[in-house]
Amino acid sequence: MKNNQFAIVPTDSEAAIAELKKIQFITATMADLKTVPEVYRALLAKSFPEVHSTAGLTHKFANLMATSQHNLNDWLATANVVNNQVFYNVGLQLLGFLPGQDFDLADPLLAMRDIHLPMVGDSAFDREALYYAWYLLLNTRGVKGQTLIENLTTRGYFVPFYQRPNQDKPLFFNGKAQAVFNTNELIRDVVYVEAPLDTDHDGQRDLLKVEILRPAETATGLKVPVLYTASPYNQGIDDAAGKATMHNVDVPLTAKTPDTNTYADVEYHSQPADLPAARSVTQISDAAEETFGREQSYTLNDYFLARGFAVVYAAGIGSVDSDGLAPTGDEDETTSTIAIIEWLTGKRHAFTTRDGDVAINAWWTNGLVAMTGRSYLGTLATAAATTGVDGLKTIISEAAISSWYDYYRDNGLVVAPDTFQGEDTDVLAAEVFSRSLKAGDAHQIKPKFDAKLAALTAGQDRTTGSYNQFWDERNYLKNVANIKADIVMVHGLNDWNVKPRNVANLWDKLQDVPVTKKLILHQGQHIYINNLQSLDFTDMMNLWLSHELYGLDNHAESLLPNVLVQDNTATQTWHAHDNWWQDTDDALDFKVQYKELVPADHPVDQRAAHFTDKLPDKLFDHYRTDLTAWQTDLLSEDKTSPLYDHRLLFKSWQAPSDQLLVGRPHVTGSVAVNQNFGMLSFMLLDFGSAKRLTVSPQLIASKALDLGYHWREDDLKDFKLAAATSPYKMITKGHLNLQNRHEPWHAEALKANEFYDFAVDLQPIFHHLLTGHQIGLVVYATDMKMTVRGNQDLQYSLQLNDLSLHIPMKPFE
Amino acid sequence: MKNNQFAIVPTDSEAAIAELKKIQFITATMADLKTVPEVYRALLAKSFPEVHSTAGLTHKFANLMATSQHNLNDWLATANVVNNQVFYNVGLQLLGFLPGQDFDLADPLLAMRDIHLPMVGDSAFDREALYYAWYLLLNTRGVKGQTLIENLTTRGYFVPFYQRPNQDKPLFFNGKAQAVFNTNELIRDVVYVEAPLDTDHDGQRDLLKVEILRPAETATGLKVPVLYTASPYNQGIDDAAGKATMHNVDVPLTAKTPDTNTYADVEYHSQPADLPAARSVTQISDAAEETFGREQSYTLNDYFLARGFAVVYAAGIGSVDSDGLAPTGDEDETTSTIAIIEWLTGKRHAFTTRDGDVAINAWWTNGLVAMTGRSYLGTLATAAATTGVDGLKTIISEAAISSWYDYYRDNGLVVAPDTFQGEDTDVLAAEVFSRSLKAGDAHQIKPKFDAKLAALTAGQDRTTGSYNQFWDERNYLKNVANIKADIVMVHGLNDWNVKPRNVANLWDKLQDVPVTKKLILHQGQHIYINNLQSLDFTDMMNLWLSHELYGLDNHAESLLPNVLVQDNTATQTWHAHDNWWQDTDDALDFKVQYKELVPADHPVDQRAAHFTDKLPDKLFDHYRTDLTAWQTDLLSEDKTSPLYDHRLLFKSWQAPSDQLLVGRPHVTGSVAVNQNFGMLSFMLLDFGSAKRLTVSPQLIASKALDLGYHWREDDLKDFKLAAATSPYKMITKGHLNLQNRHEPWHAEALKANEFYDFAVDLQPIFHHLLTGHQIGLVVYATDMKMTVRGNQDLQYSLQLNDLSLHIPMKPFE
Repeated sequence: MKNNQFAIVPTDSEAAIAELKKIQFITATMADLKTVPEVYRALLAKSFPEVHSTAGLTHKFANLMATSQHNLNDWLATANVVNNQVFYNVGLQLLGFLPGQDFDLADPLLAMRDIHLPMVGDSAFDREALYYAWYLLLNTRGVKGQTLIENLTTRGYFVPFYQRPNQDKPLFFNGKAQAVFNTNELIRDVVYVEAPLDTDHDGQRDLLKVEILRPAETATGLKVPVLYTASPYNQGIDDAAGKATMHNVDVPLTAKTPDTNTYADVEYHSQPADLPAARSVTQISDAAEETFGREQSYTLNDYFLARGFAVVYAAGIGSVDSDGLAPTGDEDETTSTIAIIEWLTGKRHAFTTRDGDVAINAWWTNGLVAMTGRSYLGTLATAAATTGVDGLKTIISEAAISSWYDYYRDNGLVVAPDTFQGEDTDVLAAEVFSRSLKAGDAHQIKPKFDAKLAALTAGQDRTTGSYNQFWDERNYLKNVANIKADIVMVHGLNDWNVKPRNVANLWDKLQDVPVTKKLILHQGQHIYINNLQSLDFTDMMNLWLSHELYGLDNHAESLLPNVLVQDNTATQTWHAHDNWWQDTDDALDFKVQYKELVPADHPVDQRAAHFTDKLPDKLFDHYRTDLTAWQTDLLSEDKTSPLYDHRLLFKSWQAPSDQLLVGRPHVTGSVAVNQNFGMLSFMLLDFGSAKRLTVSPQLIASKALDLGYHWREDDLKDFKLAAATSPYKMITKGHLNLQNRHEPWHAEALKANEFYDFAVDLQPIFHHLLTGHQIGLVVYATDMKMTVRGNQDLQYSLQLNDLSLHIPMKPFE
Repeated sequence: MKNNQFAIVPTDSEAAIAELKKIQFITATMADLKTVPEVYRALLAKSFPEVHSTAGLTHKFANLMATSQHNLNDWLATANVVNNQVFYNVGLQLLGFLPGQDFDLADPLLAMRDIHLPMVGDSAFDREALYYAWYLLLNTRGVKGQTLIENLTTRGYFVPFYQRPNQDKPLFFNGKAQAVFNTNELIRDVVYVEAPLDTDHDGQRDLLKVEILRPAETATGLKVPVLYTASPYNQGIDDAAGKATMHNVDVPLTAKTPDTNTYADVEYHSQPADLPAARSVTQISDAAEETFGREQSYTLNDYFLARGFAVVYAAGIGSVDSDGLAPTGDEDETTSTIAIIEWLTGKRHAFTTRDGDVAINAWWTNGLVAMTGRSYLGTLATAAATTGVDGLKTIISEAAISSWYDYYRDNGLVVAPDTFQGEDTDVLAAEVFSRSLKAGDAHQIKPKFDAKLAALTAGQDRTTGSYNQFWDERNYLKNVANIKADIVMVHGLNDWNVKPRNVANLWDKLQDVPVTKKLILHQGQHIYINNLQSLDFTDMMNLWLSHELYGLDNHAESLLPNVLVQDNTATQTWHAHDNWWQDTDDALDFKVQYKELVPADHPVDQRAAHFTDKLPDKLFDHYRTDLTAWQTDLLSEDKTSPLYDHRLLFKSWQAPSDQLLVGRPHVTGSVAVNQNFGMLSFMLLDFGSAKRLTVSPQLIASKALDLGYHWREDDLKDFKLAAATSPYKMITKGHLNLQNRHEPWHAEALKANEFYDFAVDLQPIFHHLLTGHQIGLVVYATDMKMTVRGNQDLQYSLQLNDLSLHIPMKPFE
């Protein structure tokens, strides 16, 4: 294991000792102890909260080796001093590392360094130094990806704190909230928030079901902040309806009628809607009238439930027990999302029942809200932030969409999220419209939702794939300037579902917005990262939210790196950066010579290259059902590959040194096609035989992460290197409709067999290219995984001397 | 979904109504209601335990359709009668089935029949009939594999019962214990049981750590029975030590010196060992001195913790915090396993600390114990049962070993469990000797354990593979006559880890033992089945354990089928049988003609067939690392397959009708080999293109099974058909050392190139052969997945006219 730990708050010895007293690790009786080893024994004794007898402790101590030859009991019996060898021998074992396997008892300091664990330099401790070293050890992460204090938490350390008075809660240690709230006593309420919407046009404002979990202490006056997850999936999904709505992608690309559109022609302007009167309130109650068994939870939220945060889930308009129609990303959806926050901050009504007139306030919260969640959930957090709604202090948006056009389209083309060919806004709406799962409700709402679906189908316009008002309404990037919430963004560099452009564009736009923003780029696909062994993401978020929502001055804003990136060449390796590509003007520039990418200043020949897109029917059918085979054949350098003549592949020099490629690779060139329409697709590859990280974290230990004490659990995982070497890795992709050479909203004429200049940004990257590896550029047309697949007789020619590739880079440190 | 439900206790109307009153579904106020629809509404109101207001209920009712046109509210407003159409329309929705997708509101009875849900015939209900239908509905399983009462449980129905006095607990409904125990209040104790053993020869009896979870009610006098899981894995495993001990299997088979052994020569006789004096007791305490955070639990046990059962885990000798040395299946291990039961029944001491003298009794139990668990865990349950220890009322042994020779050996050959080539008793001991994970303990015990490992290595004797005293000690089948516990056995017909012979031999031996025994054979590999959608295994076990451990007269012994078998030809299909092969004398008998299996009365030619075992080095190396490729090539009928000449394959007629093949296929023949040693392996195949069940259940819904209320969860799964058709399926296997033609303990001489008669039982089967499918018999030598793989120049000849195959069968119903 290699530890990557960012959420340790530098703390001086005096403060550390005060904190140890606060969490009762240093007790009053310790002052009476005469020697440092006696104090050490007392600290160790506190480290076995499950043991309630001296005899029991003796046995636990005997399980630990203090030196290569003596167990802890034996060593303590004669110890005069505590040195750092013994301290870290025992410390490593407390952290779950195995002598002989993970470290050598003869040199624990070497392992501390190798695993990247923080340590103090003292070779022999006085009492203060011991306390300080102990403090640091408690804040050090072990083999299970939890700090020692967290490990002790899962073994009951904080149980005695449950009974403490409210004024002692929450409890912070090293800048992070601790699990002193009894999750067995959580209060679970359902309320119905009234949104300023009537999306189902029934003459009543839409009510939205909200599930709340809050600490029992709120019932006796403690005000807590809220983690709010807006998840359209939360009340169930209608898989069958989604499947039934799925689009056939084996349809031809067609010519668009050239237009003169400018952005002004497609810009969306909000239309004020007639809003029914608010529901009248006859009574205000403090008590909910409905509860729930098991919510669909995010384990990061579960973790915070033990630490003094409430959690709120809402599935929004169109979901079970709520009003409205699922709209996939429109303005109403954003309005419904922030309605919950407006209720939490006292600006809207909620009701105790779905059809009642008894209002209920969020009297238990301090009014500070963070939004959490991944994918559609993170998207709604982003949407909410772009309204600048009061009370939304921060969002942690993971794998979030920043513009729905960038999710379902690309440069004038229909481009599906990976593994969801044929999906579109209507498909997603049908899937998350969970009201359809309740037959009684579905019976009366179905005609209205069918009309809504038809409107989505029309608005999304799969025929042209162009950017229009429908998409402009669903572009949150327009409103980034409104953002007042601080932001943590998390995204996978291998996320081909929500593609990296979504996070990159938001990050780029945020550069000028006066909020604190942090970015974490990992090597995964569309995943959560709060259960990784090697990265203290959960602790970072604890630091962040303790700061944001409880106002704790823990320096979260400076301790967390601005841009934290997982290295793609090694396991468990993360690097902090000041920025993504915004802090560099360096770049690699290539032109093309025959099949090579050559430096841009290299003289190149005049030459054109051609490829045909059409495949034999049988081969095409094979690839339709085996997309992996298609990609393998497309990228094969073997001349016998059936796709060898259906794409162009150019390879660069072997990198003379490690390169850090960052930002948006840019391809320009000139192309002709034998019809009045056409598309180009691009891939950038890292060629070089290597064992590469798998894009899904692998299970290390099932249910190993207890998120509190006798509370919910998560699996411990991490990225590992694949067992086999691979010859290359696809780094990024891009797609272009040849009629949208300049703007996605502007269709230009294309004459058959004439050359046209094009320029396209590929999806942004943060890629470590190893010495000796080569960059590859692949130019092709139909992307079986993402574009429409008409298997048409389209032939493409490129002027090779015009082709250029620009990749921003920064110095490799 | 197809429902397979065996644990419904037939209950008459009067008893059903009494039970509904007991669980407060029928309340006193219901008697005052005037009409059947009013009563119906009252029952429905109880079905939303999360809703605490009339207005809230109105909304939930509006979510349900009563007829094709009316929701439940509207329908109730005018209803005069309740008919079975409405009742099952609503009932199906309460069970999670979707109108339009899973059933048609115009004909719910059709769906009830198709899904195999129990229902009553009345077309219009009077009050009594309504109650009775409701009672049945509560006991009917829904889409999540839980009954309606269980679904209500997960939504809080039984929370008000938590506060009931002890004399009202446990609470049984339809013969099964209900979740009226608050799992948030469980008491968790650690004690150390003194076993009558000193396996580490330190002059002290071995103490064994035991983790106990018991309902809070035990603290106020309730006596509860115990589910005891003995799991050597429970305190962690030493993977690295296991790997380091793994044996190389790429070694030659060698000739054994012929002997004159009879069973008497290898019979193990227990040696009374000198036992140190018992630890002195200075005090007896009622209170434990140690607790724990998270035990490694079996979800079936978790389920029972909510229902009035205590759960006890012990990892046994050689595990963390216990004494002793891991011995893999020997007599000491059995002694240590039952020592826990002896403590639970007041016959042994336990201590509050590992080295202390304060004893603690199991004062909270009624002294009735069941053992649970799979694999090694079920094996120890079997071992314990064969001692006849008092207090062990029943075991539920899943995928259990009944003789360790049948796990690691076969007919004189080293034969590995599937996917664990090279494993043996010493490897397993090294892996489960978790004391090695505690460096302080490991430091002092390692030399003794190394000696123990060496003794295991010697005793297991991989050189000959013969049955000897070492294996005889580890053969629980010898002691089946001692069994006093009733038994439920569960085994996978595709379990090639613990092969089916283990359960079959135990089942067969139990035929004469006067205990109740039940057998469940599923189509999985080495898995648990308590989370399947289509089978009420958990309910069956509830029925069983309520009967066995609480003495409830619920007819479990007759309601559960004697032999329950999952059909291999269809999803979610289970059949009850009276017995396995013991109730049939029918059989299919084949001889061989060229490449065909022909009926035994068919005249066959004189003819010999030959194959060579040795492969080209490169091919051999390929198969070593790709065992799937090896099996595919071995079974390929394509003459170009590289293994075509390395095995013989015979195929039968196409089955004229469906056949039910049961028990132990038997192969006889005569064979010659070009050395003085050799082996034969056999496979039986079902040839016929079909989509077949996958051997691992597939995820249906993550965390969908709440095992109580706000308690632990399990994933919902079931077997599905593979997406692709397969041409055949391997049904069973067998292996034979040609020097062990008669007994595994008796090595006979083998002269090169002379023909010898052999006879071998293959692993037992319960296989549904479809009409038109063919039986295949494959004869080969080295089994890359299981035997040693010397790749020796061995050539085998078989007299085809001597070859015969006998397969017991029974009538297909």
